[in-house]
Amino acid sequence: MPRDRNETRRRILAGAYALFYAEGFQRVSLDAIASRAGLTKRTLYNHFETKDALVAAALAEHASLAADLTRVWCEGAAQSPEGLVRHLFTELRAWASKPDWRGSGFTRAAMELAWAPGHPARAAASDHKTVVERAIARALERRGACDPARCAAALAVLIEGANALRMIHGDDAWYDVAEAAALDLL
Amino acid sequence: MPRDRNETRRRILAGAYALFYAEGFQRVSLDAIASRAGLTKRTLYNHFETKDALVAAALAEHASLAADLTRVWCEGAAQSPEGLVRHLFTELRAWASKPDWRGSGFTRAAMELAWAPGHPARAAASDHKTVVERAIARALERRGACDPARCAAALAVLIEGANALRMIHGDDAWYDVAEAAALDLL
Repeated sequence: MPRDRNETRRRILAGAYALFYAEGFQRVSLDAIASRAGLTKRTLYNHFETKDALVAAALAEHASLAADLTRVWCEGAAQSPEGLVRHLFTELRAWASKPDWRGSGFTRAAMELAWAPGHPARAAASDHKTVVERAIARALERRGACDPARCAAALAVLIEGANALRMIHGDDAWYDVAEAAALDLL
Repeated sequence: MPRDRNETRRRILAGAYALFYAEGFQRVSLDAIASRAGLTKRTLYNHFETKDALVAAALAEHASLAADLTRVWCEGAAQSPEGLVRHLFTELRAWASKPDWRGSGFTRAAMELAWAPGHPARAAASDHKTVVERAIARALERRGACDPARCAAALAVLIEGANALRMIHGDDAWYDVAEAAALDLL
Protein backbone atom coordinates (compact mmCIF):
# COMPACT_ATOMS: atom_id res chain seq x y z
CA MET A 1 0.00 0.00 0.00
CA PRO A 2 1.48 3.44 -0.89
CA ARG A 3 2.46 5.47 2.16
CA ASP A 4 -0.24 8.14 1.77
CA ARG A 5 -2.97 5.58 1.33
CA ASN A 6 -1.77 3.75 4.41
CA GLU A 7 -1.75 6.95 6.43
CA THR A 8 -5.27 7.83 5.31
CA ARG A 9 -6.41 4.35 6.32
CA ARG A 10 -4.91 4.74 9.81
CA ARG A 11 -6.46 8.19 10.19
CA ILE A 12 -9.88 6.81 9.24
CA LEU A 13 -9.52 3.90 11.68
CA ALA A 14 -8.35 6.00 14.63
CA GLY A 15 -11.15 8.52 14.11
CA ALA A 16 -13.72 5.77 13.56
CA TYR A 17 -12.79 3.93 16.76
CA ALA A 18 -12.98 7.15 18.78
CA LEU A 19 -16.46 7.88 17.40
CA PHE A 20 -17.68 4.28 17.84
CA TYR A 21 -16.37 4.23 21.41
CA ALA A 22 -17.98 7.56 22.30
CA GLU A 23 -21.33 7.07 20.59
CA GLY A 24 -21.89 3.40 19.82
CA PHE A 25 -20.88 1.08 16.98
CA GLN A 26 -24.31 0.93 15.38
CA ARG A 27 -25.24 4.53 15.99
CA VAL A 28 -22.29 6.24 14.28
CA SER A 29 -22.83 6.75 10.56
CA LEU A 30 -20.30 6.51 7.74
CA ASP A 31 -21.09 10.20 7.07
CA ALA A 32 -19.86 11.11 10.56
CA ILE A 33 -16.70 9.04 10.09
CA ALA A 34 -15.92 10.56 6.68
CA SER A 35 -16.54 14.04 8.05
CA ARG A 36 -14.24 13.46 11.04
CA ALA A 37 -11.46 12.20 8.76
CA GLY A 38 -11.98 15.18 6.42
CA LEU A 39 -12.81 12.85 3.52
CA THR A 40 -15.67 12.39 1.11
CA LYS A 41 -17.82 9.31 1.59
CA ARG A 42 -16.57 8.12 -1.81
CA THR A 43 -12.95 8.16 -0.56
CA LEU A 44 -14.04 6.37 2.62
CA TYR A 45 -15.71 3.65 0.51
CA ASN A 46 -12.47 3.42 -1.45
CA HIS A 47 -10.82 2.18 1.76
CA PHE A 48 -13.70 0.21 3.30
CA GLU A 49 -16.43 -1.28 1.19
CA THR A 50 -18.95 -1.64 4.01
CA LYS A 51 -19.52 -0.29 7.51
CA ASP A 52 -19.17 -3.85 8.86
CA ALA A 53 -15.66 -4.05 7.38
CA LEU A 54 -14.80 -0.65 8.87
CA VAL A 55 -16.06 -1.63 12.35
CA ALA A 56 -14.00 -4.83 12.26
CA ALA A 57 -10.87 -3.03 11.01
CA ALA A 58 -11.23 -0.25 13.62
CA LEU A 59 -11.46 -2.88 16.37
CA ALA A 60 -8.47 -4.82 15.02
CA GLU A 61 -6.38 -1.61 14.81
CA HIS A 62 -7.39 -0.59 18.33
CA ALA A 63 -6.68 -4.13 19.57
CA SER A 64 -3.00 -3.73 18.82
CA LEU A 65 -2.87 -0.48 20.87
CA ALA A 66 -4.84 -2.10 23.69
CA ALA A 67 -2.56 -5.16 23.69
CA ASP A 68 0.51 -2.89 23.92
CA LEU A 69 -1.10 -1.09 26.85
CA THR A 70 -1.81 -4.41 28.60
CA ARG A 71 1.87 -5.34 28.24
CA VAL A 72 2.93 -1.94 29.65
CA TRP A 73 0.56 -2.46 32.60
CA CYS A 74 1.99 -5.94 33.22
CA GLU A 75 5.60 -4.72 32.96
CA GLY A 76 4.95 -1.84 35.36
CA ALA A 77 3.78 -4.17 38.11
CA ALA A 78 5.75 -5.44 41.12
CA GLN A 79 7.48 -8.80 40.78
CA SER A 80 4.88 -10.91 42.59
CA PRO A 81 1.52 -12.31 41.46
CA GLU A 82 -0.17 -10.18 44.16
CA GLY A 83 1.67 -7.08 42.94
CA LEU A 84 0.53 -7.77 39.39
CA VAL A 85 -3.12 -8.14 40.42
CA ARG A 86 -3.02 -4.93 42.51
CA HIS A 87 -1.34 -3.02 39.69
CA LEU A 88 -3.85 -4.19 37.06
CA PHE A 89 -6.81 -3.07 39.17
CA THR A 90 -5.11 0.27 39.96
CA GLU A 91 -4.74 0.83 36.20
CA LEU A 92 -8.34 -0.26 35.56
CA ARG A 93 -9.63 2.20 38.19
CA ALA A 94 -7.56 5.01 36.61
CA TRP A 95 -8.89 4.09 33.15
CA ALA A 96 -12.50 4.05 34.36
CA SER A 97 -12.08 7.41 36.11
CA LYS A 98 -11.57 9.21 32.79
CA PRO A 99 -14.62 11.36 31.98
CA ASP A 100 -14.98 9.80 28.51
CA TRP A 101 -14.74 6.21 29.81
CA ARG A 102 -17.50 3.97 28.47
CA GLY A 103 -16.33 0.46 29.39
CA SER A 104 -14.56 -2.01 27.11
CA GLY A 105 -15.05 -1.11 23.45
CA PHE A 106 -14.55 -4.76 22.45
CA THR A 107 -17.22 -6.00 24.85
CA ARG A 108 -19.59 -3.25 23.76
CA ALA A 109 -19.10 -4.13 20.09
CA ALA A 110 -19.84 -7.80 20.83
CA MET A 111 -22.93 -6.86 22.85
CA GLU A 112 -24.22 -4.45 20.19
CA LEU A 113 -23.72 -7.23 17.64
CA ALA A 114 -25.18 -9.99 19.82
CA TRP A 115 -27.68 -10.68 17.02
CA ALA A 116 -24.88 -11.22 14.44
CA PRO A 117 -22.67 -14.11 15.61
CA GLY A 118 -20.74 -14.22 12.33
CA HIS A 119 -19.92 -10.49 12.23
CA PRO A 120 -16.15 -9.91 11.80
CA ALA A 121 -16.19 -7.46 14.73
CA ARG A 122 -17.26 -10.34 16.99
CA ALA A 123 -14.14 -12.27 15.95
CA ALA A 124 -11.97 -9.18 16.58
CA ALA A 125 -13.43 -8.87 20.09
CA SER A 126 -12.84 -12.54 20.87
CA ASP A 127 -9.26 -12.42 19.52
CA HIS A 128 -8.44 -9.38 21.62
CA LYS A 129 -9.78 -10.88 24.85
CA THR A 130 -7.62 -13.96 24.20
CA VAL A 131 -4.49 -11.82 23.61
CA VAL A 132 -5.04 -9.97 26.91
CA GLU A 133 -5.68 -13.18 28.84
CA ARG A 134 -2.46 -14.72 27.48
CA ALA A 135 -0.42 -11.61 28.32
CA ILE A 136 -1.72 -11.82 31.90
CA ALA A 137 -0.95 -15.55 32.04
CA ARG A 138 2.66 -14.91 30.92
CA ALA A 139 3.02 -12.08 33.45
CA LEU A 140 1.70 -14.35 36.22
CA GLU A 141 4.05 -17.15 35.12
CA ARG A 142 7.09 -14.83 35.21
CA ARG A 143 6.09 -13.90 38.77
CA GLY A 144 5.93 -17.54 39.88
CA ALA A 145 2.14 -17.91 40.22
CA CYS A 146 1.35 -21.56 40.93
CA ASP A 147 -1.19 -22.09 38.09
CA PRO A 148 -0.84 -19.10 35.74
CA ALA A 149 -3.30 -20.27 33.05
CA ARG A 150 -6.05 -20.99 35.59
CA CYS A 151 -5.39 -17.71 37.46
CA ALA A 152 -5.36 -15.70 34.21
CA ALA A 153 -8.70 -17.19 33.14
CA ALA A 154 -10.24 -16.34 36.53
CA LEU A 155 -8.75 -12.82 36.30
CA ALA A 156 -10.21 -12.46 32.79
CA VAL A 157 -13.69 -13.25 34.16
CA LEU A 158 -13.25 -10.91 37.15
CA ILE A 159 -11.95 -8.02 35.01
CA GLU A 160 -14.73 -8.53 32.45
CA GLY A 161 -17.39 -8.61 35.16
CA ALA A 162 -15.95 -5.65 37.07
CA ASN A 163 -15.71 -3.49 33.93
CA ALA A 164 -19.35 -4.28 33.09
CA LEU A 165 -20.67 -3.65 36.62
CA ARG A 166 -18.54 -0.47 36.93
CA MET A 167 -20.36 0.79 33.83
CA ILE A 168 -23.81 -0.45 34.82
CA HIS A 169 -23.73 0.83 38.41
CA GLY A 170 -21.24 3.70 37.95
CA ASP A 171 -19.36 2.52 41.03
CA ASP A 172 -15.62 1.81 41.44
CA ALA A 173 -16.36 -0.58 44.33
CA TRP A 174 -16.79 -3.38 41.77
CA TYR A 175 -13.05 -3.21 41.08
CA ASP A 176 -12.43 -3.63 44.83
CA VAL A 177 -14.70 -6.72 44.88
CA ALA A 178 -12.93 -8.23 41.86
CA GLU A 179 -9.44 -7.37 43.15
CA ALA A 180 -10.12 -8.96 46.55
CA ALA A 181 -11.48 -12.09 44.84
CA ALA A 182 -8.46 -12.27 42.51
CA LEU A 183 -6.03 -11.98 45.44
CA ASP A 184 -7.91 -14.75 47.30
CA LEU A 185 -7.63 -17.00 44.26
CA LEU A 186 -3.85 -16.67 43.77
CA MET B 1 -55.84 1.54 34.05
CA PRO B 2 -58.80 -0.31 32.43
CA ARG B 3 -58.20 -4.02 32.04
CA ASP B 4 -58.00 -4.01 28.22
CA ARG B 5 -55.55 -1.14 28.19
CA ASN B 6 -53.40 -2.90 30.77
CA GLU B 7 -53.43 -6.12 28.72
CA THR B 8 -52.43 -4.26 25.56
CA ARG B 9 -49.57 -2.63 27.46
CA ARG B 10 -48.30 -5.99 28.68
CA ARG B 11 -48.57 -7.47 25.19
CA ILE B 12 -46.57 -4.56 23.75
CA LEU B 13 -43.89 -4.92 26.43
CA ALA B 14 -43.50 -8.69 26.11
CA GLY B 15 -43.25 -8.46 22.32
CA ALA B 16 -40.91 -5.48 22.50
CA TYR B 17 -38.51 -7.21 24.91
CA ALA B 18 -38.42 -10.33 22.72
CA LEU B 19 -37.57 -8.21 19.67
CA PHE B 20 -35.00 -6.07 21.51
CA TYR B 21 -33.35 -9.21 22.92
CA ALA B 22 -33.21 -10.94 19.55
CA GLU B 23 -32.16 -7.99 17.40
CA GLY B 24 -30.76 -5.22 19.59
CA PHE B 25 -32.29 -2.36 21.55
CA GLN B 26 -31.25 0.37 19.13
CA ARG B 27 -31.83 -1.61 15.99
CA VAL B 28 -35.49 -2.58 16.48
CA SER B 29 -37.89 0.09 15.24
CA LEU B 30 -41.22 1.16 16.72
CA ASP B 31 -42.77 -0.01 13.44
CA ALA B 32 -41.54 -3.55 14.08
CA ILE B 33 -42.87 -3.46 17.65
CA ALA B 34 -46.29 -2.14 16.61
CA SER B 35 -46.48 -4.74 13.86
CA ARG B 36 -45.60 -7.57 16.24
CA ALA B 37 -48.26 -6.44 18.70
CA GLY B 38 -50.81 -6.12 15.87
CA LEU B 39 -51.29 -2.42 16.59
CA THR B 40 -50.98 0.81 14.65
CA LYS B 41 -48.07 3.06 15.51
CA ARG B 42 -50.60 5.62 16.75
CA THR B 43 -51.92 3.12 19.33
CA LEU B 44 -48.36 2.26 20.33
CA TYR B 45 -47.61 5.98 20.89
CA ASN B 46 -50.78 6.13 22.97
CA HIS B 47 -49.07 3.74 25.43
CA PHE B 48 -45.46 4.92 25.12
CA GLU B 49 -44.60 8.44 24.06
CA THR B 50 -41.03 7.67 23.02
CA LYS B 51 -38.90 4.66 22.14
CA ASP B 52 -36.68 5.45 25.15
CA ALA B 53 -39.70 5.12 27.45
CA LEU B 54 -40.65 1.83 25.78
CA VAL B 55 -37.14 0.39 26.12
CA ALA B 56 -37.06 1.30 29.83
CA ALA B 57 -40.56 -0.11 30.45
CA ALA B 58 -39.77 -3.35 28.56
CA LEU B 59 -36.64 -3.83 30.70
CA ALA B 60 -38.52 -3.08 33.93
CA GLU B 61 -41.29 -5.56 32.97
CA HIS B 62 -38.74 -8.23 32.05
CA ALA B 63 -36.81 -7.52 35.27
CA SER B 64 -39.71 -8.78 37.35
CA LEU B 65 -39.80 -12.06 35.37
CA ALA B 66 -36.01 -12.40 35.62
CA ALA B 67 -36.06 -11.71 39.37
CA ASP B 68 -38.73 -14.42 39.82
CA LEU B 69 -36.55 -16.83 37.85
CA THR B 70 -33.52 -16.00 40.02
CA ARG B 71 -35.57 -16.82 43.14
CA VAL B 72 -36.71 -20.12 41.57
CA TRP B 73 -33.08 -20.96 40.76
CA CYS B 74 -32.02 -20.17 44.34
CA GLU B 75 -34.89 -22.18 45.87
CA GLY B 76 -34.12 -25.19 43.68
CA ALA B 77 -30.56 -25.43 44.97
CA ALA B 78 -29.17 -27.78 47.61
CA GLN B 79 -28.97 -26.46 51.18
CA SER B 80 -25.29 -25.53 51.21
CA PRO B 81 -23.44 -22.51 49.79
CA GLU B 82 -21.52 -24.87 47.47
CA GLY B 83 -24.77 -26.47 46.31
CA LEU B 84 -26.19 -23.02 45.55
CA VAL B 85 -23.14 -22.00 43.48
CA ARG B 86 -23.18 -25.28 41.53
CA HIS B 87 -26.92 -24.99 40.88
CA LEU B 88 -26.68 -21.37 39.67
CA PHE B 89 -23.96 -22.24 37.16
CA THR B 90 -25.87 -25.33 35.99
CA GLU B 91 -28.87 -23.07 35.31
CA LEU B 92 -26.68 -20.47 33.58
CA ARG B 93 -25.19 -23.15 31.30
CA ALA B 94 -28.71 -24.41 30.44
CA TRP B 95 -29.85 -20.82 29.72
CA ALA B 96 -26.85 -20.13 27.48
CA SER B 97 -27.38 -23.39 25.57
CA LYS B 98 -30.70 -22.18 24.16
CA PRO B 99 -30.34 -21.44 20.43
CA ASP B 100 -31.79 -17.94 20.85
CA TRP B 101 -29.51 -17.04 23.79
CA ARG B 102 -27.79 -13.67 23.35
CA GLY B 103 -26.37 -12.96 26.81
CA SER B 104 -27.92 -10.74 29.48
CA GLY B 105 -30.47 -8.36 27.98
CA PHE B 106 -29.88 -5.89 30.82
CA THR B 107 -26.12 -5.80 30.25
CA ARG B 108 -26.62 -5.48 26.51
CA ALA B 109 -29.02 -2.56 26.96
CA ALA B 110 -26.50 -0.79 29.24
CA MET B 111 -23.68 -1.44 26.73
CA GLU B 112 -25.74 -0.26 23.76
CA LEU B 113 -26.56 2.86 25.75
CA ALA B 114 -23.03 3.42 27.07
CA TRP B 115 -23.14 6.88 25.49
CA ALA B 116 -26.32 7.84 27.41
CA PRO B 117 -25.62 7.61 31.17
CA GLY B 118 -28.96 9.20 32.10
CA HIS B 119 -31.11 6.91 29.93
CA PRO B 120 -33.92 5.30 31.99
CA ALA B 121 -32.96 1.87 30.60
CA ARG B 122 -29.56 2.25 32.28
CA ALA B 123 -31.30 2.71 35.63
CA ALA B 124 -33.50 -0.35 34.94
CA ALA B 125 -30.38 -2.44 34.23
CA SER B 126 -28.63 -1.28 37.40
CA ASP B 127 -31.75 -1.89 39.54
CA HIS B 128 -32.14 -5.41 38.17
CA LYS B 129 -28.50 -6.38 38.81
CA THR B 130 -28.92 -5.17 42.41
CA VAL B 131 -32.11 -7.24 42.88
CA VAL B 132 -30.35 -10.39 41.63
CA GLU B 133 -27.28 -9.78 43.80
CA ARG B 134 -29.46 -9.36 46.91
CA ALA B 135 -31.46 -12.52 46.13
CA ILE B 136 -28.17 -14.44 45.91
CA ALA B 137 -26.94 -12.86 49.16
CA ARG B 138 -30.13 -13.95 50.96
CA ALA B 139 -29.86 -17.47 49.52
CA LEU B 140 -26.22 -17.67 50.67
CA GLU B 141 -27.17 -16.38 54.11
CA ARG B 142 -29.93 -19.00 54.51
CA ARG B 143 -27.33 -21.63 53.65
CA GLY B 144 -24.92 -20.42 56.34
CA ALA B 145 -22.25 -18.84 54.10
CA CYS B 146 -19.73 -17.04 56.30
CA ASP B 147 -19.90 -13.63 54.57
CA PRO B 148 -22.99 -13.69 52.31
CA ALA B 149 -22.81 -10.05 51.13
CA ARG B 150 -19.14 -10.31 50.15
CA CYS B 151 -19.67 -13.72 48.47
CA ALA B 152 -22.75 -12.47 46.60
CA ALA B 153 -20.84 -9.44 45.26
CA ALA B 154 -17.99 -11.68 44.08
CA LEU B 155 -20.54 -14.06 42.51
CA ALA B 156 -22.19 -11.09 40.77
CA VAL B 157 -18.83 -10.17 39.19
CA LEU B 158 -18.09 -13.77 38.20
CA ILE B 159 -21.56 -14.34 36.68
CA GLU B 160 -21.40 -11.01 34.82
CA GLY B 161 -17.95 -11.80 33.46
CA ALA B 162 -18.78 -15.40 32.56
CA ASN B 163 -21.98 -14.39 30.70
CA ALA B 164 -20.03 -11.79 28.72
CA LEU B 165 -17.12 -14.11 27.86
CA ARG B 166 -19.55 -16.96 27.03
CA MET B 167 -21.10 -14.63 24.46
CA ILE B 168 -17.82 -13.18 23.17
CA HIS B 169 -16.00 -16.52 22.80
CA GLY B 170 -19.03 -18.80 22.34
CA ASP B 171 -17.57 -21.21 24.89
CA ASP B 172 -19.24 -22.72 27.99
CA ALA B 173 -15.82 -23.21 29.62
CA TRP B 174 -16.10 -19.65 30.99
CA TYR B 175 -18.87 -20.87 33.30
CA ASP B 176 -16.52 -23.61 34.54
CA VAL B 177 -13.80 -21.02 35.26
CA ALA B 178 -16.26 -18.78 37.12
CA GLU B 179 -17.84 -21.68 39.03
CA ALA B 180 -14.45 -22.99 40.20
CA ALA B 181 -13.45 -19.47 41.30
CA ALA B 182 -16.76 -18.99 43.15
CA LEU B 183 -16.36 -22.31 44.99
CA ASP B 184 -12.79 -21.36 45.99
CA LEU B 185 -14.05 -18.05 47.38
CA LEU B 186 -16.79 -19.52 49.63
